[in-house]
Amino acid sequence: MSSFIDIPADSDFPLENIPFGVISTKDNAALRPATAIGDHVVDLKAIADAGLFAGPLLKAVAVSVFSQTSLNAFMRLGRPSWREARSTLQSLLSKGTASRLRDDAAFRAAAIVHKSTVINHMPAQIGDYTDFYSSKEHAFNVGVMFRGKDNALQPNWVHLPVGYHGRASSVVVSGTPIRRPNGLIQDFATKAIHYSTCKKFDYELETAFFVGTGNNLGERIDIADTEEHIFGMVLMNDWSARDIQAFEYVPLGPFLGKNFGTTISPWIVTMDALEPFRVAQPVQDPVPASYLASGPKDAYNLQLQCDLKPHGHDTSYTISKTNLKYMYWSMKQQLAHHSVNGCNMNAGDLLGSGTISGPDDTSLGSLLEASVNGKKEVVLSADGAVKRTFIEDGDSLKITGKCEAEVDGKKIRIGFGACEGTVVPAAQL
Amino acid sequence: MSSFIDIPADSDFPLENIPFGVISTKDNAALRPATAIGDHVVDLKAIADAGLFAGPLLKAVAVSVFSQTSLNAFMRLGRPSWREARSTLQSLLSKGTASRLRDDAAFRAAAIVHKSTVINHMPAQIGDYTDFYSSKEHAFNVGVMFRGKDNALQPNWVHLPVGYHGRASSVVVSGTPIRRPNGLIQDFATKAIHYSTCKKFDYELETAFFVGTGNNLGERIDIADTEEHIFGMVLMNDWSARDIQAFEYVPLGPFLGKNFGTTISPWIVTMDALEPFRVAQPVQDPVPASYLASGPKDAYNLQLQCDLKPHGHDTSYTISKTNLKYMYWSMKQQLAHHSVNGCNMNAGDLLGSGTISGPDDTSLGSLLEASVNGKKEVVLSADGAVKRTFIEDGDSLKITGKCEAEVDGKKIRIGFGACEGTVVPAAQL
Ligand SMILES: [Ca+2]
Ligand SMILES: [Ca+2]
Ligand SMILES: [Mg+2]
Ligand SMILES: [Mg+2]
Ligand code: NI
Repeated sequence: MSSFIDIPADSDFPLENIPFGVISTKDNAALRPATAIGDHVVDLKAIADAGLFAGPLLKAVAVSVFSQTSLNAFMRLGRPSWREARSTLQSLLSKGTASRLRDDAAFRAAAIVHKSTVINHMPAQIGDYTDFYSSKEHAFNVGVMFRGKDNALQPNWVHLPVGYHGRASSVVVSGTPIRRPNGLIQDFATKAIHYSTCKKFDYELETAFFVGTGNNLGERIDIADTEEHIFGMVLMNDWSARDIQAFEYVPLGPFLGKNFGTTISPWIVTMDALEPFRVAQPVQDPVPASYLASGPKDAYNLQLQCDLKPHGHDTSYTISKTNLKYMYWSMKQQLAHHSVNGCNMNAGDLLGSGTISGPDDTSLGSLLEASVNGKKEVVLSADGAVKRTFIEDGDSLKITGKCEAEVDGKKIRIGFGACEGTVVPAAQL
Repeated sequence: MSSFIDIPADSDFPLENIPFGVISTKDNAALRPATAIGDHVVDLKAIADAGLFAGPLLKAVAVSVFSQTSLNAFMRLGRPSWREARSTLQSLLSKGTASRLRDDAAFRAAAIVHKSTVINHMPAQIGDYTDFYSSKEHAFNVGVMFRGKDNALQPNWVHLPVGYHGRASSVVVSGTPIRRPNGLIQDFATKAIHYSTCKKFDYELETAFFVGTGNNLGERIDIADTEEHIFGMVLMNDWSARDIQAFEYVPLGPFLGKNFGTTISPWIVTMDALEPFRVAQPVQDPVPASYLASGPKDAYNLQLQCDLKPHGHDTSYTISKTNLKYMYWSMKQQLAHHSVNGCNMNAGDLLGSGTISGPDDTSLGSLLEASVNGKKEVVLSADGAVKRTFIEDGDSLKITGKCEAEVDGKKIRIGFGACEGTVVPAAQL
């Protein structure tokens, strides 16, 4: 496949991707659905209004769903419609296929804009946000720190994908500044409790998926059907205040240590675009209960990276390189588990992976792990001058991700764009 | 105050109440805002369309906010507007004040309908739902069961109102059947883990409040301002699967043990209606941090009751009589705490009290406590024939609540209507 749009070789958004997002532009403040192609962005409202979603599923509904300010209505249509939209756009953007988009210069200039004029918005209205804890390496590393090596994993961990409800309102799109939180913190040595600014500001490198179609309350999504319900994936930074979290979280879980902000990348990459990158997930021992039964290739070879740009610097330093394929529990298992009790899932629900840590020191997905809860400085610059235990005000973090594989002799690269945020100083106490 | 509508002496909805909800009627399926008065319901869309919200704040916006299918738009207007709506309705419904509602029989018949023709719906679209754990008696009782008397309360408990994020999608209105959930359960004796139907199905007697106006991400709601942000209260049953919860909840908190369903009463009683029933909250020792500083009367003398109607029976048995005034942490403190880290609250957010247990055996807000986690049968009928450790299929639970006080020599009673649900058998495993 090649496009009449010039696509840089290292682009996250080749014709094989076709992610979905919501944009406005400098000259049009209206929020509308869009896709990304190379360094350009295609306005899906313009495509729909021109009648170019002409396939059997979308023909009658495209104008309506692509006139919304979020993708929720499109998500509710179901996977056959998502597939039709993607293949229609691939065809419209192809070099070799005649289309109004390719051949009508005035229409093309209105419907396709350069990314420099685009403002990304939240792609969906999130009804509920859940975060899992599905990396065995991460759960083990954290467990060792707080309970020692022998009790690192709780007894439930290998039997089900542990997760908790997060705060939907504070999930924000890449680029939104994140304010350092205040809260109650216990001094480790004296045990004194202070109302204070967070001193252990951390990130968590995660991915997340959006539910496309849901289930009714009291029903469940069978694991065999889960792939029809998952719309696509984004990168996620689950910013975490470790000192606030440490004092508050027993016995009901993380709350203010997490809900001050969670950043996602703006473009939702569909599961169809990620299909060539499926790999076997780690062997699960013990074998999970029947409702969590896996398929042969339920993991994804998605390379992930987090870069930190220190305040006052122009250089970024890579602080983690990890991979989604390490995850013990799959997205299918997370969704089947979430609904096994009849919990109703809806279009736009966001389900986070949990921090993705790999097997070694360079693949840890949080500074909590890399600095051993602040005990060890993480050296960033080669000269040793720039180092961190936790994140400082003015630091920027950027998570990126890409899948690479050879498909039919051609090297394919699918990326996610950036999940980026800069930490701003706390409000007055 | 007296109304031209005949109001039974024991009604939850005298002219002093004026709660807000969302209804449809047998002859009009459109969802619209309403208030309750005695055994009748007033259609607020009809009142707005007739131009009767003529006060300075609502005049221009009443048609718009009362044409919505939820109260969220009305909530966003702020407390002065909520007050104006309530006093306008009190005046329109007064016996002694001329109004089109009182004097135009045809209009009255269209705008005021008997409750028997009304279907109640969710009053607001809940963005995020949080449940607290603010009854010291409940936290202590549960703590003793799981950690013994000396470690019953966690160290954080007296310093902050412990809470966690719940699932917004499965909050349902009174009358919705609740399906018994399935999930992974660990056998206490053998430690074996089974995919099974819940065997310890419980309720939690709670109240909850709706946020009216919120705050921006990164800002906080000062405790001195919290009363302007709280729209009103409902009764809540936080159905709980104790066996699923017990296995899953470490270390990230309750998840599938809770998120299969939460029932609320349909009418939101405003804080203005509850003002005469304010009382001092329990003494807090240690004194909380400055951002949690209390006023002199931040508790409410709200009498609460839960009745169980066993399957196959026509009689209900009271299983709990408790009072909101026992709560250690106030709603003001819960809201100030929730936002102290900059977490953004929105109109329609629901914040639960946590199980409300009182000081003795008759005031326990859950069967977990009353049956000591299933070890002791709770006798319901005088002859001892009807008893429960947990809730059985077909059982109905009904939570009710009322405030009573003498105001200017007149006995005032403000009620909440019912928060009711019947348990239906689990789905096939
Ligand atoms: Ca996380
Ligand atoms: Ca509860
Ligand atoms: Mg977060
Ligand atoms: Mg519940
Ligand atoms: Ni261009």
